[in-house]
This record gives sequence, C-alpha cells and structure tokens, in this order.
Amino acid sequence: MPPTPTIDINCDMGESFGAWTLGNDAALLPFITSANIACGFHAGDPGVMRQTVRAALRHGVALGAHPGLPDLVGFGRRNMDISPEEAFDMTAYQLGALNAVAKAEGGRLHHLKPHGALYNMAATNAALAEAIAEAVYKVAPELVLYGLANSELTRAGEKLGLRTAHEVFADRTYQANGTLTPRRQPDALITDAAAAIAQVLRLVMDGQVRSQQGPDVALRADTVCLHGDGAHALEFAQRLHHELRAAGVQLQAARPAVAP
Amino acid sequence: MPPTPTIDINCDMGESFGAWTLGNDAALLPFITSANIACGFHAGDPGVMRQTVRAALRHGVALGAHPGLPDLVGFGRRNMDISPEEAFDMTAYQLGALNAVAKAEGGRLHHLKPHGALYNMAATNAALAEAIAEAVYKVAPELVLYGLANSELTRAGEKLGLRTAHEVFADRTYQANGTLTPRRQPDALITDAAAAIAQVLRLVMDGQVRSQQGPDVALRADTVCLHGDGAHALEFAQRLHHELRAAGVQLQAARPAVAP
Amino acid sequence: MPPTPTIDINCDMGESFGAWTLGNDAALLPFITSANIACGFHAGDPGVMRQTVRAALRHGVALGAHPGLPDLVGFGRRNMDISPEEAFDMTAYQLGALNAVAKAEGGRLHHLKPHGALYNMAATNAALAEAIAEAVYKVAPELVLYGLANSELTRAGEKLGLRTAHEVFADRTYQANGTLTPRRQPDALITDAAAAIAQVLRLVMDGQVRSQQGPDVALRADTVCLHGDGAHALEFAQRLHHELRAAGVQLQAARPAVAP
Amino acid sequence: MPPTPTIDINCDMGESFGAWTLGNDAALLPFITSANIACGFHAGDPGVMRQTVRAALRHGVALGAHPGLPDLVGFGRRNMDISPEEAFDMTAYQLGALNAVAKAEGGRLHHLKPHGALYNMAATNAALAEAIAEAVYKVAPELVLYGLANSELTRAGEKLGLRTAHEVFADRTYQANGTLTPRRQPDALITDAAAAIAQVLRLVMDGQVRSQQGPDVALRADTVCLHGDGAHALEFAQRLHHELRAAGVQLQAARPAVAP
Repeated sequence: MPPTPTIDINCDMGESFGAWTLGNDAALLPFITSANIACGFHAGDPGVMRQTVRAALRHGVALGAHPGLPDLVGFGRRNMDISPEEAFDMTAYQLGALNAVAKAEGGRLHHLKPHGALYNMAATNAALAEAIAEAVYKVAPELVLYGLANSELTRAGEKLGLRTAHEVFADRTYQANGTLTPRRQPDALITDAAAAIAQVLRLVMDGQVRSQQGPDVALRADTVCLHGDGAHALEFAQRLHHELRAAGVQLQAARPAVAP
Repeated sequence: MPPTPTIDINCDMGESFGAWTLGNDAALLPFITSANIACGFHAGDPGVMRQTVRAALRHGVALGAHPGLPDLVGFGRRNMDISPEEAFDMTAYQLGALNAVAKAEGGRLHHLKPHGALYNMAATNAALAEAIAEAVYKVAPELVLYGLANSELTRAGEKLGLRTAHEVFADRTYQANGTLTPRRQPDALITDAAAAIAQVLRLVMDGQVRSQQGPDVALRADTVCLHGDGAHALEFAQRLHHELRAAGVQLQAARPAVAP
Repeated sequence: MPPTPTIDINCDMGESFGAWTLGNDAALLPFITSANIACGFHAGDPGVMRQTVRAALRHGVALGAHPGLPDLVGFGRRNMDISPEEAFDMTAYQLGALNAVAKAEGGRLHHLKPHGALYNMAATNAALAEAIAEAVYKVAPELVLYGLANSELTRAGEKLGLRTAHEVFADRTYQANGTLTPRRQPDALITDAAAAIAQVLRLVMDGQVRSQQGPDVALRADTVCLHGDGAHALEFAQRLHHELRAAGVQLQAARPAVAP
Repeated sequence: MPPTPTIDINCDMGESFGAWTLGNDAALLPFITSANIACGFHAGDPGVMRQTVRAALRHGVALGAHPGLPDLVGFGRRNMDISPEEAFDMTAYQLGALNAVAKAEGGRLHHLKPHGALYNMAATNAALAEAIAEAVYKVAPELVLYGLANSELTRAGEKLGLRTAHEVFADRTYQANGTLTPRRQPDALITDAAAAIAQVLRLVMDGQVRSQQGPDVALRADTVCLHGDGAHALEFAQRLHHELRAAGVQLQAARPAVAP
C-alpha cells in the first residue's frame, strides 16, 4: 500500500504590532497546519507573540519561528546588506525569544522559516543560508527548517543534518529549472484558484509541476505557503484545505525524516 | 565549623549597541562572578550579546539575563507606565533571546536581573514584580532571580518557589527600615572606597548594615552590585575583589537554596 | 450682532505605520477642520506622514503636528518619566519633521497638539508643559498650541504669547472644577451620541458644561476632539458635523487671537 | 589676480545616541568648516542633535543635515533596498527635524549630505539621487547638496538648480575615470598623512588628482571629507587644517554658485 500523500499548509501569523492589527489569524487557523510567527523584528511585539502562540496551540497548529530583518517600517521586505554573522545572530535571538514565549504558554516550537527579504536572500545566498541554518542547529536542532524548495537554505540545513521542509507555492508559476518565475514577469502569478489548487495537488501526488517553458519539473513539496493577506485569502484557504482533504491528502505539519 | 562567608559580585555587561561601545567589560570580568547581560531592549544588540556571552564564559562568570524597558534612547532608565502583562511579556522575550544566544555559545543562563527602571519599579510594585517572577518561573524556573534585598521582587520570586539572590550595594547608604536612601538625598552615596568595602564586608560577615539613622539593620546579602561605569570603577572592582578574598570571603555566583 | 458661534473639530490622523493601517482618515476628513498628524515616534512613518498631509490639504483641513513619546509598541499611550529637556527636544524634532513634509507638499502647519501620554502629562505637569510650549515658540511661534482646556499646557502657551486652542471633549463628563472625570470612574464617558452632541453645542453656544456634581462650569471651547477609532466614529463625526452646522455654528480650524 | 584657493573641510558629527558617546566632536570642531549632523535614523537622538548644533554654532561651523537609513544597529552603513519615494521621505523628514532643532538654537542649516549607505547608493543610483535632491529642493532649496564629486547625486542636484558641493577624499585613491578605488582593493587607502594632505592640496590648487593608473584626472573639489574616527583623526585634522592654511588656502563652508 502506498503511503498516504501528505502535505503541510503553513501561513504567516502574528503580524500585528502594538495598536496595529494585521491579518486574519483567528479565521485562518482552522485551515492550516503550521504557523510562522513573527518575532519582533519586522512585526509581532512580545504580547502579540504570546496571543498568537496561544491561538495556534488552541487549534493544534504547529508553532514556527519567523525571524525577519530589523526593519519594522519596511515589514522586513527590503533586502539589507547584512553579514552572515548578523544573520546568525538575528536568527538565534528571535528564535530564542519565541521559544520562551511558547514555553511560557506550555507549547514548543516545531519549525523555523525566515521572513520576507531574509527568506529570499537565504534562498540564493549560500553564506546567509548557512548562517541561518547554523543558528537553528546550535539553538534548537530538533526544529524543521522551512525554505524554498531546492534552495540554498534547504541545502544548508541538510548539510548540517537538520530536517528541512521544502516549500512550494500555490499561486506562483515555475521555470524549467525549478525556480519560481520572478515576480516582475507578467506570468509570475496564478490568479485562478482552481489552477492554483491543481498545481498543489499535482505536486503532492506526483512531485511534479508544469513549468512555464512546457516540460514538467520534479519538485519536493513538504509544505505549501498560504498567503494570509489579499481579498480572497480566507476563501482560498478553505477551498485548498477542503480539496486537498477530498483528494485523500493528509494535512499535517511537516515532519520529514532527517536528511541522510 | 561555620560555613565560609560567601558572596557574589554582579555587574551589568554587554551594554554596547551597534557602532557604540559602552563599559569596560573585558577589564572587569576577572573581578566579578556574575554578569547581567543586556538583551536588546535598552542596550545590547544580538551581536553584542553573543560577544558578551563568549567573554563571560571565558572567564567562568555566570550568565544572567538583564531585561530592560523598550527604551533605547533612555537606556531603560526612565520609568514607563507598563502593565503587568507587558512586564511578563518583555521579560519572557528577552530571557528567551539571551538563552538562545547562550546556548549557541555552549553556555547556559544562571540568573535574571531586571535593568534600570524595570528593576526599580519591580522593587516596590508588587504586580510588576509578580509578573516578572512569573515569566522566569514559566520560562526558566532553574534560574536565580536577582532583586533588591527585601523587595517586592525577591518576595514575588520566593512566593513562586524560585531561588532568589538579595542584592546589596557597596556605594549606597541604607535607612533604618532597610531601604536604600533615595538618590536625591545628600547622604545617599558612599563615595569613600574604604567605607564602601567595609559596608560590604560587614553585610557578608554579620548580615548587618549601619543605617543612616544610627541603628544596625539586618539584611540578607547574596550578591553585591558593582557599577561598571564611573572613573574609578575598575580600580574599585579590583580592590573589592581583593579585600573580600583577603578577608576569607568566597566569591561565587549566587546559589541560594530554594525558598522554603 | 453677536459673533457667529464657531468651533474647530480636530481628529488624530496618519496613525498608520509601514504595512499597518489604522483609522479611517479618508472617510473622516470631510467632517473635520483640523488634523493632528502623527510624526513618527508613536505612529506615522515618513511616507504615511506625506500621504496624510496630502489628503488633508485636498480637503482643506488644517495641518497639525501631533508629537508623541518614543514608544511605538505602546502607541505613545504609556506615561514615561521624561525630563523637560527631553520633552522640548522630542517636540522640536517631530514638529520639524512634519513641517518639512508639509512644505514638500506645498502646505504649512497650523497647530501642534501633543499625543496621548504626552498630552496627558502636559495637562498637569507644568515643567513638561512649559518645555513643549517653548519648543513651539522657538521653532514655529505662528502655530496654535492645542491643549486640554484650562490645563498647564494652555497656560504655558499663553505665558509665552502663543495662540492656544482650548480643547473640549464630546464624549467625556466634567467635574465641578472643570477637569475631566477620570476614566477609571464609571461615569467618565458619555456613550449617548445625542447627549455628547448636546454637550458640545452648549459649550459652543454658552461656554458652559454641566458638571457631574450638578452645577454648570464655564469652559472655553475652541476645539472639540473627535475620536477616529471606535465602531461608530464615522457616524458620530457626520452627525456632530451636521448638527453643529444646523445650529448655525461655523466650523473652522481654531484661530484664537494671541493671548494678551 | 587669481581667486584665493578655497576649500571646505566637512566632518560627520553628533553620532552619539542616548547613553552612548561616539566621536570627538568638541576636539575636532576648531579644525573643520562644516558639520554633517546625524538626524536620528542611524545615530543622533533629538538631545544629541541639539547639543551638536549648539557646539557647531559656537565654533562658527556650518550646520548640515546628515540623513541616514533607518538602521540604528547597523549605523546606516548597510545598503537597503529602498524605493526612491522612501529616500525622498526619509530625507525630508530628517532634514526637517534637524532644521527645527537648529532654529530652536538660533541657527540655520547650510547643507545636506546623505550618510553612509545612503550616500554610497545615491552616488551611483540615479533614481535615489534624484529623490534625495528633490527632497532638498522642495524642503530647503537654499541648502548646498554635498555629494561625491561627479556622482549621480551632484548631477541630480545640479539638474534641479541646487548648489552642490563636490566632495573629495584625502585618504582614498582615485581611478583614471575619476571614481574612488573600491575599498576592497589593496590600494584603496592612503595611509600616509603627508601623501593624503598633498593629494588635497593638489586638488585645491590644480583641480587634479593622480590616478592609480598613472594619468591625472580633473576633479572639482569643493569640500574634503574628514573622518572623525580612527586613532589619528584629531592629529590629522590639525595637520590638514594647518598645512592648507600655510599654503594660502582659505577654509570656509562650501558656497558654490548656483549651477547654470
């Protein structure tokens, strides 16, 4: 009997800050299996972090640290010319901060996924990727490191023996070499919900995605990223959740075996 | 045979930030037994924290979290009207952050001492004191909670069963009720080094301090605070260290028994 | 012929920050006559400031600087133990910043009103009030200083010869001595919209408010504070605007004569 | 009679922050003619800004705004992927803030020079350069815009009709095309003080600099940058000041004619 096809649905959470509310965490939590919780540098003050941990625990959603660049006004989305040492330090710091908040609420962390520009830079910059992976390895080696599928970040994690989760996107198209179509290209986004869900289903079932150049590309898909913002985010979350389940896919937080 | 008189010498450390250097950590480390390391809110960025942890470990100095108010420009010295929940959250967050940095360097935390205005407010405000003690209890109950001797903070820690270290001051005078003479009074400070050291010795040996009103006051003295700033800080640190040792006092990080 | 009864309706604006949106500025602008624009310390990044200035200018709404405490996570609502020098400096800095943004958009500032805890502290702390008034006086003496009616802040401004606008509240009750009923008291708020509007009308027409103790109190009312948050803020704004106009009250940004 | 050779010596100032002191402003002020004063984003809190303005005014040193990236921990030295709009907004904001502080002290601004990574990015990125120049033009068109000689920033300023000051370096070598030798190259720095001063003198007298490739390059030199940090900064400042004066060079804040 073949193993049950399985995937994790992850979503950024806890992106409020002080008096400012962002996102729709309470509504989305029933439809996801792991939460990437902002850790204070790009969003998420200590009180927001605690409330987010509490809500995720109530829904049985796995807790993940979501460290970002120290850029509150830019929401961690602007690339910064940081050194690998700085990447290591900001990852360790934010991971530890959320870990303490989780412990205070009786929970424990499951994964770490860098946020925004830190995620993007770590996908292609090996030195930053290694620094982030090293911080996870030294502070909490039991965590799963989430990164773009086939990126420098997953490679760096695997080199250290960390469990990694390769992330795929429902609403982005892929190139023949397995990379995402850059956002500046007109065909970067999949705006049709049915097509987006079909792409995820095919990745889960066959491990393949149709590239923009035509041929299929093999891609490991441990977790799919759900965007919490946007007008139709909640509707799409519900639909993705239900169609995956209807197709016999098991939804659970990523628990890949340790890399060989 | 009576037990060897023992005391801890603690000092604030890691108060640099980014391009700015503060204090004389490297020179002071040989003369202290525990370091209160800034955690990023009032001073100490993640890189400074790592370097400070590393230096303290090299000298066998116990590592302590030194959480402060979120007030970089005021160095955490300005009272802020925070709620107990906010005190809990900022303590848990900063404690966790330093804990991760310490773990990444192969060390582990020994204590927590609030910084500046947070320390002062927690000495007299029971609700804030309880929130801080609760954060330590939930995140790292093995830590020693440092607080002003006979303060709301030590009381709150003891109520939860935490080990506490009662802190005394070499260079401050005391009132007949055991409190510090307020700084605004002309007789608040002891500027003569010999008198300051004599006060510490008497506290260690007899558990007594002469009050400004005349009579002696009993005071538990687990740790003495060394100020790292000031023109004569290093000289005083050396002298205090040597005179305590010459008097047969054992210097070691505070390890009081758990409160009954 | 008696002068036309006149009042200014002011409202806090520009309280978004980076990715976070707060308030309903666009909808409220048609119903107010002066905007208190956050200047970056408690809310309002430079981009938000520019967009807010632009929107206010489009509606012919007077531009006001709304400096706050350096407390982003607390939205400037937590009292901080700042010195008068610090109050002076943070007022001058924020006033200048908004002034430049206004000038870049072809506008000019009309008033300054401290925000949140800075406003509240300046209402009763004469030293802080004088420092804030002094900063306005030295940087932009042509501005109108907005402060709680009969407060230390209006007094400090008048002593320096600044024009001041005495602010009254629609939704707060008053004590027999002319002060606001403290928020912690059960009768502090007026939740009935009709009663709130009646209170404003009476203040504009007669300069009197009924105190909670019974007797009327005389109160100078140059400007009424409209709260932009809350479920019914927009509805109340429309109603206040229309009922004041229907009663023959002229709505315009506060332009009191210079104090004698 | 030929005009007296003239140059401005500028230096970064006011780079302290809160409890942290940086630089040696008081000692350097007698030897410079214009001060670039940090405006709070990379260094310089409002109190430090006021003290720096006051000290510069006492020495008759021209006041300049020195806006930086919002990166306190990185001291504004890390490139950030900001948009031209963001560059415009952060320049206007910081310029206005310092302008108010200067006015409160009875002074007025003379120039603006971007700091660190903002300066470097504006030297080669035309869109950022134009945004910064536009902010100066709209907020304070009377200011002199300081930028790297022959850079996108000076070009952008001149296009708008701003007066610009072309900046040269005493301690950096030049390439045959007039650009600075990149810092990563071994021959980027001039460490010999006599050679550095000779380079400045030749630039002032002849408008020429010997390139690393051999031939001379023509370079307009309105202002020379003095680095305030480094072990020998003060000694070099004194020597540069004295040798320029001994050679008959007039030292004064840059007052170039408006671009044609």
